[in-house]
Amino acid sequence: MMDLPLEGITVLEFSQYLSGPSAGLRLADLGARVIKIERPIHGEAGRKLSIKNLWVDESSLLFHTINRNKESFAADLKNPDDIALVKQLITRADVLIHNFRPGVMKKIGLDYAAAADINPRLIYAEITGYGKDGPWREKPGQDLLLQSITGLAFTTGNFTNGPVPFGIAIADILCGSQLVQGIIAALIRRNKKGVGALVEISLMESLLDFQFELLTTYYNSRQQPKRSHTNSGHTLLGAPYGVYKTADGYIALAMMDIGVLAETIECTALYGFTNDHAFAQRDHIKALLAAHLLTQPAQHWLQRLQQRGLWAMEVFDWEKMMAHDSYRALQMEQTLKAEGKQIITTRCPIRINGRRLFSDRPAPKVGEHTEKLIREMNEVIVNKEPHAFRRYTGN
Amino acid sequence: MMDLPLEGITVLEFSQYLSGPSAGLRLADLGARVIKIERPIHGEAGRKLSIKNLWVDESSLLFHTINRNKESFAADLKNPDDIALVKQLITRADVLIHNFRPGVMKKIGLDYAAAADINPRLIYAEITGYGKDGPWREKPGQDLLLQSITGLAFTTGNFTNGPVPFGIAIADILCGSQLVQGIIAALIRRNKKGVGALVEISLMESLLDFQFELLTTYYNSRQQPKRSHTNSGHTLLGAPYGVYKTADGYIALAMMDIGVLAETIECTALYGFTNDHAFAQRDHIKALLAAHLLTQPAQHWLQRLQQRGLWAMEVFDWEKMMAHDSYRALQMEQTLKAEGKQIITTRCPIRINGRRLFSDRPAPKVGEHTEKLIREMNEVIVNKEPHAFRRYTGN
Repeated sequence: MMDLPLEGITVLEFSQYLSGPSAGLRLADLGARVIKIERPIHGEAGRKLSIKNLWVDESSLLFHTINRNKESFAADLKNPDDIALVKQLITRADVLIHNFRPGVMKKIGLDYAAAADINPRLIYAEITGYGKDGPWREKPGQDLLLQSITGLAFTTGNFTNGPVPFGIAIADILCGSQLVQGIIAALIRRNKKGVGALVEISLMESLLDFQFELLTTYYNSRQQPKRSHTNSGHTLLGAPYGVYKTADGYIALAMMDIGVLAETIECTALYGFTNDHAFAQRDHIKALLAAHLLTQPAQHWLQRLQQRGLWAMEVFDWEKMMAHDSYRALQMEQTLKAEGKQIITTRCPIRINGRRLFSDRPAPKVGEHTEKLIREMNEVIVNKEPHAFRRYTGN
Repeated sequence: MMDLPLEGITVLEFSQYLSGPSAGLRLADLGARVIKIERPIHGEAGRKLSIKNLWVDESSLLFHTINRNKESFAADLKNPDDIALVKQLITRADVLIHNFRPGVMKKIGLDYAAAADINPRLIYAEITGYGKDGPWREKPGQDLLLQSITGLAFTTGNFTNGPVPFGIAIADILCGSQLVQGIIAALIRRNKKGVGALVEISLMESLLDFQFELLTTYYNSRQQPKRSHTNSGHTLLGAPYGVYKTADGYIALAMMDIGVLAETIECTALYGFTNDHAFAQRDHIKALLAAHLLTQPAQHWLQRLQQRGLWAMEVFDWEKMMAHDSYRALQMEQTLKAEGKQIITTRCPIRINGRRLFSDRPAPKVGEHTEKLIREMNEVIVNKEPHAFRRYTGN
């Protein structure tokens, strides 16, 4: 069995909800040992965040989804004895992640300066909502709020819809993903130079980076791109780019030549339009096209479009997607084994040497690994092995 | 000046448009030397992809945005002499990225087996649209099409809107981001074990991973979550989560107690509703709330909500966001210097040891660095220095 790329790396996760824990999840997927540091009894706040009232044990299905394949160390960060144990863990860890609001880690004596003091090789990674300066630094770093103040909600939906937020926690997920990049890159540098690092990111910077194409256009033209009035797909792309209703379902049309499109689907109303009109007359073209596509079912159009090599696909919901062989071929599902229950969830999307990265460990119970970790640390002291964590091989 | 974490790493980028080049961009941001391998004269197809007809030189503003801080090596991959040079580059590189359709790299003799044969330490990273198996493997790997077939378009907008695609190339950007994770993780393993790796990802797997919370809920309940009829924010969250119109603008309301909300904004129509109704009567509560919030301007509501500690923010477009001190405090903009022109764009969102990662190098011209790279390779041969690329220090 091939070694996973991050085997031997120990991560302490002082995180709650989605952004920090999703970073920890990816590091675990890639082979790191990830230890959640949680308050005793209740654990991190995300354990009680349920959707559709789906529970696995005393923690929600949602929590298991984000925190599978991790361990849990219970510590009361207001208790000096617990802080002392946590510091022992930090001494032996490679990475620390937190997504507390600015100032919280300093107050409990675990800010970067303090942590680097006891472990100069530590990669200390922190997520804030809005950065640590600026007037919003104390505001709640919540996904919808970040979408709302970064202009993102004006990129999606039709012009007449008003702002349309993304229905997925895009700020949390992107920010977690970028934090992972920073952490692993800092580990590379540590391998070479022996130094730790402070890696910082904010939900706001993540969403600005996400809009880099649009913002660069705006910086250099000072014109806010406008969504089309109908069938909006991307503010910077001309007709027909968008999703269209047919007689029996929806189809997506990506970039394509307007003249070829008109001919292929015999849309006489569009005859005479060329790509020169694709942006200037975007909304008019889209409206004509939308009316025409309503007259026949999706497969009628898709056959003609795809035969001509035009970029068009059906629009699926999950039921239809999961029934398709292309979904099955990916083997994207995996099953976690939690106390007699089975939880089906997605796997890590990255493959290494053709291997899909599966793991069937569910999320830990609060403090499930506290004693074991203390025992491990004691062994380290007895045997004077500074890197005992690195020898860890299983649950 | 602190070393950037990936300094000394050389990346060959056989990529076009957004997914592959955005991965290369992040690696360059983090300090890697990224060399685009492009066909002579025209270069990669993305050079001619312009938005709003904004051009910097013979390449579009969009291209510069995605390909700043890289070098360019021109090679005709159908010409054996050029292939021989490219193989010399591969011998000396650490990472190779491509996003060609399945089979293309094999046809030109540069698939993973061939590349690993000449450089067993190479990290070979590839992006496909739909994976390399399954009936869609030859379909165009285009962002909107991927959004459409993965169910993503049913997560956003209101129930009555039909499918609503995200107005940003989410599949490309996420996939590029995850590829970077896989690449750097594989570099860590190479440092330890001396072995290269094949890292694979597809746009489809990236978008499935992106929906991991929603899909896990669906896998385990088999109920497709429904968007609310009005003010939709997240299908799995109850009222009031969403964006609301006021007398003079929009505000975002995240999770909050319905009773406390009703009292704070004196919404008598909502008196008697509690959090127990937040999901079961989501659409009804949202409609009552939407009507009430129309009666006063945004600041009226925000003052009351924020004073009470409820999670609410204004909804900004970019003009308003950029006028705000919180945006300025991030210093997210940077200026590229291209032939007398200045291009303002965003920087990398990750900070290392408090340092923001800026770079003022614009995208290269096609083949701008071909001769220099050939010279460097010749010096390597003469001096028998296998890692001459690692000594590279500037433009």
